Amino acid sequence: MLDVALLGTGGMMPLPNRFLTSFLLRFNGRLLLVDCGEGTQVTMKLLGWGYKSVDAICITHFHADHISGLPGLLLAIGNSDREEPLVMIGPEGLRHVVTSLCVIAQDLPFQLEFIELPYRQGILPEPAKVGSYEVKSCPMDHRLPCFGYSFEFKRAGKFSPEKAALNQVPMAVWNKLQKGVDATINGVSYTPSQVLGPPRKSIKVSYCTDSRPVPILAPFVKDSDLLVCEGLYGEMDKLQKAASHKHMIFQEAAKVAKDANVKELWLTHFSPSLTNPGAFVQEARAIFPKTSVGTDRMSKTIRYEDEDEEDES
Amino acid sequence: MLDVALLGTGGMMPLPNRFLTSFLLRFNGRLLLVDCGEGTQVTMKLLGWGYKSVDAICITHFHADHISGLPGLLLAIGNSDREEPLVMIGPEGLRHVVTSLCVIAQDLPFQLEFIELPYRQGILPEPAKVGSYEVKSCPMDHRLPCFGYSFEFKRAGKFSPEKAALNQVPMAVWNKLQKGVDATINGVSYTPSQVLGPPRKSIKVSYCTDSRPVPILAPFVKDSDLLVCEGLYGEMDKLQKAASHKHMIFQEAAKVAKDANVKELWLTHFSPSLTNPGAFVQEARAIFPKTSVGTDRMSKTIRYEDEDEEDES
Repeated sequence: MLDVALLGTGGMMPLPNRFLTSFLLRFNGRLLLVDCGEGTQVTMKLLGWGYKSVDAICITHFHADHISGLPGLLLAIGNSDREEPLVMIGPEGLRHVVTSLCVIAQDLPFQLEFIELPYRQGILPEPAKVGSYEVKSCPMDHRLPCFGYSFEFKRAGKFSPEKAALNQVPMAVWNKLQKGVDATINGVSYTPSQVLGPPRKSIKVSYCTDSRPVPILAPFVKDSDLLVCEGLYGEMDKLQKAASHKHMIFQEAAKVAKDANVKELWLTHFSPSLTNPGAFVQEARAIFPKTSVGTDRMSKTIRYEDEDEEDES
Repeated sequence: MLDVALLGTGGMMPLPNRFLTSFLLRFNGRLLLVDCGEGTQVTMKLLGWGYKSVDAICITHFHADHISGLPGLLLAIGNSDREEPLVMIGPEGLRHVVTSLCVIAQDLPFQLEFIELPYRQGILPEPAKVGSYEVKSCPMDHRLPCFGYSFEFKRAGKFSPEKAALNQVPMAVWNKLQKGVDATINGVSYTPSQVLGPPRKSIKVSYCTDSRPVPILAPFVKDSDLLVCEGLYGEMDKLQKAASHKHMIFQEAAKVAKDANVKELWLTHFSPSLTNPGAFVQEARAIFPKTSVGTDRMSKTIRYEDEDEEDES
């Protein structure tokens, strides 16, 4: 199972009642953060999932509202006694931008490792491996190089005692193999595939802001259990303004969700001028019914198919 | 008259209910800001004095909690259509630090001008001129070069018709001279000193964080109408901890206020561990009775002596 939380829902500048857009994923007790604007460490504190377990931070692009909170957050993570390296993923130039910002966050007690994504329109970079899952990225269409992200949490096949017996796997190594680890006993080696059924449906969660709705986007986020997508404005008559600044409006995000056959859409990255985003949700729902207007720290647990609440395997 | 507001009262990290320590002064409709941690733009928005009129930003030192909000604030000031240059004052290295942080705030619609203060223990740098007043700085004792600031708002002498008559100044230029501007009539030049009495008492406001209480501090802030000073902890038994991190506790700030004969002391820069600073105010008041525990956006109007509420001259 995967926990997700939308840490903030604002675009452009933090507001007294709205943090900047960022997104937190928790899987097996470890955290991955997407975007980190000014104040992200505060809304993370309010959420209460801690700082220490952040293994990776993905940055969509280098506009301040998506990265200005990074030095403060890195210091907060440092104060939590973290020592393991932290992976940063973002567009080319990431190391330079982060190093520049860290002029006020030097001597961190952990290393930063950088994965810089090459920006070529219409071409997906190689997925990045973080812990036990993959981070996929997709070039977007904004005023500077920007990536959407998709996170896929794979699930091994179900343990099959029949298959294990058929393959003559000794019971002494079943447990180890069931956990996905190779095992050797009496000089004979065994692999998990000898005791597991076919891989089961994974959990997929996608995040996309800031961008126009590029053609590659719907295939990229296809069949996501959750799509978090920007809707800078709710008003249809602001489409041109949104487009000229390379953003999307609610209805466009809903169209992407529909085309991609996602299970659920959360809108975010609202303009400061959009004081009541909920007033426009019906227009989006007319296109994609499972649309929600994001709110700060809105969260959800997403389970594997047929994963019951007790079984967290 | 001068308006002042303590924008935040926290040290080290922004908290859900406490912004980081910074201080705003408003004089003749223009603003000067001291320190700018993560979230300062948000508490400024809550205060409601606007962004556009910020003429100068003084930075005490380069720890993140005193400057991490700068890129976001500069962008907010830029969004307010400001075009006049903005003066930045801080320790040597200021231009490098600000330029590094501004990797995510490029193309600002106004120029930044830098005044870098040389840090020599016990030696006051030259005062900096900002608009109609002077910014004085004082080297403090922290873990890296840090300055306290003092702002003095001078007041010309009172207009004296008797003196004007004695000096045979024509009435036609009285108004101009009264405003402090030289005037010429019928080929004869006159100066304000010919119509004004002796200069009157100025308003002085001082701000000091983060530091141990250095000997030069009390003379530097002497006779301030208001001293804003850090008190990282209220508990006397945390003195050693405060000292080892080069900070002050409440009682030490109160001692500075007493020695300097200031009119009023506001404590600020509370440790995140100090959840109820008010619980320790009595210990400080035992040393300096006019001590207040700062709260976010605590503000005050300071008037010149004998300046009545209608007369803002």
